[in-house]
Amino acid sequence: MSDNPRGLVVAEMSMSLDGFVAGPNETLEHGLGTRGGHHVFDWLSSGTRRFPPDKSMALRPEGASRGVIAETFARFGAYVSGKRTYTLARGWGGLHPAGVPTFVLTHNSDPDPPGDGTGLIFVTGGIEDAIDQAKVTAGAKDIALLGASPCQQALKAGLLDEIFVHVAPILIGDGVRLFDHFGDDFIMLEQVDAFAGVNVAHLRYRVQGQGS
Amino acid sequence: MSDNPRGLVVAEMSMSLDGFVAGPNETLEHGLGTRGGHHVFDWLSSGTRRFPPDKSMALRPEGASRGVIAETFARFGAYVSGKRTYTLARGWGGLHPAGVPTFVLTHNSDPDPPGDGTGLIFVTGGIEDAIDQAKVTAGAKDIALLGASPCQQALKAGLLDEIFVHVAPILIGDGVRLFDHFGDDFIMLEQVDAFAGVNVAHLRYRVQGQGS
Repeated sequence: MSDNPRGLVVAEMSMSLDGFVAGPNETLEHGLGTRGGHHVFDWLSSGTRRFPPDKSMALRPEGASRGVIAETFARFGAYVSGKRTYTLARGWGGLHPAGVPTFVLTHNSDPDPPGDGTGLIFVTGGIEDAIDQAKVTAGAKDIALLGASPCQQALKAGLLDEIFVHVAPILIGDGVRLFDHFGDDFIMLEQVDAFAGVNVAHLRYRVQGQGS
Repeated sequence: MSDNPRGLVVAEMSMSLDGFVAGPNETLEHGLGTRGGHHVFDWLSSGTRRFPPDKSMALRPEGASRGVIAETFARFGAYVSGKRTYTLARGWGGLHPAGVPTFVLTHNSDPDPPGDGTGLIFVTGGIEDAIDQAKVTAGAKDIALLGASPCQQALKAGLLDEIFVHVAPILIGDGVRLFDHFGDDFIMLEQVDAFAGVNVAHLRYRVQGQGS
């Protein structure tokens, strides 16, 4: 990553082996949907997990996954979130538990609740605008995308640098796919790393681009 | 696997990170379809690969993947193949390159070309019948399913013991999904192993069953 040492745009997501980040019927009540969607995060807590996450959530990953979480909390200087993720997480109570500013994609220029300009910033100019703003805030740190939709939008726009997926040992079969609607051609990746945590496989890729 | 030391039914497949075993438009001409479907097998040859595979195909996996291929050739005593996979592989010239009997699922009791009863055996009784027959042939060895359809049928019928996927660094976005149509509930897996090969991640799971 020597040619782009800072401000990498990263899709870091937990997903099922069949590619779902949530089951069907996501609601405030159902959290990550029915059909076992919540199990994609089992590895974070080595067991059951409350949804939505909040500041008091105990993260207890085991084995190699500890380093993954430590990296996650250290490397990102800003988040870009889809509106749906923001809503389902109830706006993280105003500040994402990682404590970094979150740029929320929205079509509504007068969102409810409004951002306070520090913990939550609402962006109406689309994924490119949100990433541009997040890069300024992140400085030398990287940017994580929250939710399947911003990941897909960034992938389609050629703005995604890295994919870091945490593959949970479950087949969900229906719901929200992480990799969907990303364009009319395939996308080549470069495998950077692949290793086992406890009840999770961590797979890291650099995005090479479409076709060939 | 002490409670079932022999005759394990295994879905061992190469798939893209987004879960496709082939791109769209699979034909005898297109092989594994358009949209880069053939790249799911790049890891086997450390580069380009001819399709369909034949006995002269040079397998040149690198690193940890060498052991994967050695295991594959040693552990399976019979295959169960979907008709589509059989057709696209042109019947492997009468005998699968691994040299073990292959039970081909078909709805046609008079297939063309007919099996000779040794290398290729056509089965019209469905997935359970095919697996039963394959187990008798395999003896103490395991059984591999070839093609997405038999994997899905075995998963749905509760007949699948192990999933061993080789995840290729590509997003295909359309085509034939490995995990699809497997029923109305999610399926819990137990992660047995996860490790990197060269340009591939090898993920092994024991199937635990539906729901909970």
